[in-house]
Amino acid sequence: MCELFAMSANRPADAGPYLSLLMPRGGKTGPHADGWGVAYYHGRAAHIFKDPTPAAESWCLPQLAQRGVKSTAVVAHIRKANPSVFGRAIANTHPFEREWNGRSWVFAHNGKLPDLPREAVGPEARFQPLGETDSELAFCVLLNAIARRVEKEGVLTPHTLVATIQPVVRRLVEFGEFNFILSDGEHIYVHAHTRLHVLNPNRSIQNDQRLVVLATEPLTDDRWQALRSDRIHVYRQGEDVVQVH
Amino acid sequence: MCELFAMSANRPADAGPYLSLLMPRGGKTGPHADGWGVAYYHGRAAHIFKDPTPAAESWCLPQLAQRGVKSTAVVAHIRKANPSVFGRAIANTHPFEREWNGRSWVFAHNGKLPDLPREAVGPEARFQPLGETDSELAFCVLLNAIARRVEKEGVLTPHTLVATIQPVVRRLVEFGEFNFILSDGEHIYVHAHTRLHVLNPNRSIQNDQRLVVLATEPLTDDRWQALRSDRIHVYRQGEDVVQVH
Repeated sequence: MCELFAMSANRPADAGPYLSLLMPRGGKTGPHADGWGVAYYHGRAAHIFKDPTPAAESWCLPQLAQRGVKSTAVVAHIRKANPSVFGRAIANTHPFEREWNGRSWVFAHNGKLPDLPREAVGPEARFQPLGETDSELAFCVLLNAIARRVEKEGVLTPHTLVATIQPVVRRLVEFGEFNFILSDGEHIYVHAHTRLHVLNPNRSIQNDQRLVVLATEPLTDDRWQALRSDRIHVYRQGEDVVQVH
Repeated sequence: MCELFAMSANRPADAGPYLSLLMPRGGKTGPHADGWGVAYYHGRAAHIFKDPTPAAESWCLPQLAQRGVKSTAVVAHIRKANPSVFGRAIANTHPFEREWNGRSWVFAHNGKLPDLPREAVGPEARFQPLGETDSELAFCVLLNAIARRVEKEGVLTPHTLVATIQPVVRRLVEFGEFNFILSDGEHIYVHAHTRLHVLNPNRSIQNDQRLVVLATEPLTDDRWQALRSDRIHVYRQGEDVVQVH
């Protein structure tokens, strides 16, 4: 049902080695063969490469990983489509992206929300899905809620964003399984529902480099920690700055 | 000053051979060495590859072109940054994309609008630029005008879209040079201001394949025609369906 990856750092770090470890799970050592995507920020814009093909067989992803994916905020995903429901298509490939408020917002999901009705995003809503997945629909639900709140109240801090999405996340969770990563390039918002692991490989690198890496399943032999269920975390510059449950 | 490329077809055709011809102009035989981008549609979603590096030296673009860029709607761009103004950055790399009304809209520009003020997109406007270019700003101006019109009137045909953007284009042209390609995946909207060429390589291919190719400068020895200045054309399924001047 897909695997998630994210990285937050205070100075640009290379996510390439982690992506190289994730890659074989996309069709070789793991079943997530229906697409892959990487979003890495430079300032307010996400640079996105994605393709609805197996990561393990990609011509593009190994070179991207090898040449370096340097950023302070990275979101990646390998996809296993819900059987026979939503096909391999670029519109169904994570991470999804929308511009809002002069920033790229990207989103990737692990899990299933099989009964989430298409009507969860009304015809008048600002952000509409391009594809058929429950995941992109949930992204639009979250981003529409955030945009409505800001239209009313003006300012957005990580705390008000979390306060805005928390009740929405609670409703969405009732439709199934909903681990996700959302980013605006500065913050990485993470919802751990059933499965998500975190690693702080800080001291092993350099003193002034703060780094946090997240993945559905550990990618290395290091001491990854399982995030507790039903928590929202906000990472910024390699630190866990907000935790809400 | 950039070069534009677009293709419209009634059945998926491979833009790869044309992209291979465009590529060397991005830093080898031409000076457009500050980035490249390709957007090709599958249904309502654009699959986009782009990079703020010279097309002629890209590790990615040659493979993409060789493996095939099959679609009924393709928009591509190679960029020459305005000297010392807007640097090489993913946020400044064409084609730009926004989701609107459940479709990817993409935009690429050839020319300069040096005096277009940042205030052309107000802080309340729906679509905001991610980067610093006059090009992305102009895209937001156009898309904001389209969105406002539809919010008022509901329905959008190629004719009403052209009627909506025409006065906006006239104002933008006063700021400099404004050849552009805009697409929603079904239609390719083209504004020829100073330089844009079109080729109908129809009969040379197959009887039931309709195809139109556009480029700033001819890419082959075929008989490309210069589009007349100050015209807006709409291409759909390989045919020129609307012309307005």
